[in-house]
Amino acid sequence: MGIKSPVSCFFLSMVLLISVGFQDSVQGRLLLIKKPDPDNAAATARWLVSQNSWGVLNTISMDLGGAPFGNVVSFSDGLPNESSGIPYFYLTTLDPTARNALKDQRSSLTISEYSIGTCGKKDPENPSCAKITLTGKLKLLEGDSKEIEFARNALFTKHPEMEGWPKGHNFQFFKLEIEDIFLIDWFGGPKPLTLDQYFHTEL
Amino acid sequence: MGIKSPVSCFFLSMVLLISVGFQDSVQGRLLLIKKPDPDNAAATARWLVSQNSWGVLNTISMDLGGAPFGNVVSFSDGLPNESSGIPYFYLTTLDPTARNALKDQRSSLTISEYSIGTCGKKDPENPSCAKITLTGKLKLLEGDSKEIEFARNALFTKHPEMEGWPKGHNFQFFKLEIEDIFLIDWFGGPKPLTLDQYFHTEL
Repeated sequence: MGIKSPVSCFFLSMVLLISVGFQDSVQGRLLLIKKPDPDNAAATARWLVSQNSWGVLNTISMDLGGAPFGNVVSFSDGLPNESSGIPYFYLTTLDPTARNALKDQRSSLTISEYSIGTCGKKDPENPSCAKITLTGKLKLLEGDSKEIEFARNALFTKHPEMEGWPKGHNFQFFKLEIEDIFLIDWFGGPKPLTLDQYFHTEL
Repeated sequence: MGIKSPVSCFFLSMVLLISVGFQDSVQGRLLLIKKPDPDNAAATARWLVSQNSWGVLNTISMDLGGAPFGNVVSFSDGLPNESSGIPYFYLTTLDPTARNALKDQRSSLTISEYSIGTCGKKDPENPSCAKITLTGKLKLLEGDSKEIEFARNALFTKHPEMEGWPKGHNFQFFKLEIEDIFLIDWFGGPKPLTLDQYFHTEL
């Protein structure tokens, strides 16, 4: 099979570029929502949480003398166009993070714009490559609530392979109940941002 | 300018694919070292640390009631072909992480293979997408030692823009003195890995 013309070659090249370019978008969906203006702290924070698929979830380690212990986890705050701002997780007590949280709920979730792929050539520590740390309590969702149903849909839609993870590992749904937001999305230090502003912003 | 033949079109497409593909490699250098076999825990751990350019650095938050506070940071463990396994950082006390560490050195650095770009379509929480958490003490490097010179070369080579960061912000060099290694690079739970094995592995 040959390429017949400059036009079809241009077309093929663009298809290749587009398909490869989207590797940088979040797992399970393309990056369809443009990064908000850095002046809009609430929208930027919600964008970082809704567009990212993984972060580092931090707990107080029982095994390591109370050290802060970060762990790479997948999360979701809702279906692609129905983000809640609340990060949900699918964790097993075979892993120290869930065990730690069941003893001491103090926790934070840290997310970088760098892993969304929109920081270009900026250094990951450059303040204009946005980052957020949500601090609060990591809580197990119990019973058969509507919130568990929301968490399941949110997680399994964004992370399709989760549904097939071994039943014997007893994965359970957790959420981070946010108490404080640390956001850096530009020069000049962290942006003041209340929970009310964060939760009442439309993306 | 037109594309003259199927051969030049194929060539153009490959050039595009290769150039875009390398976006996923680490900042400041291409990904030249192949991922080790997961059975080789020490080599995999050193590969994760040497090939990545950023991670989440955790400290105990003074401001947030002793909560574990993760922060996105850039790091380096050495020049491209002279990795030490010790993560070095360039931090300012304008940021809470450095302030926390100066009060309580307990810390961890968490790194994901996902940000290197070699996990393919695997979920970031899939155990075969490797992750590592190095726990220990976060220490300020003081004086005018050889180690500061090593840290400066390691960081400024991998993160060229650091050299131009504002002098008035009083950035200083820190290192993580590792005491424990938590590595997951395959199914079956964390890989046993001693500091001796970690530091005495050639990449």
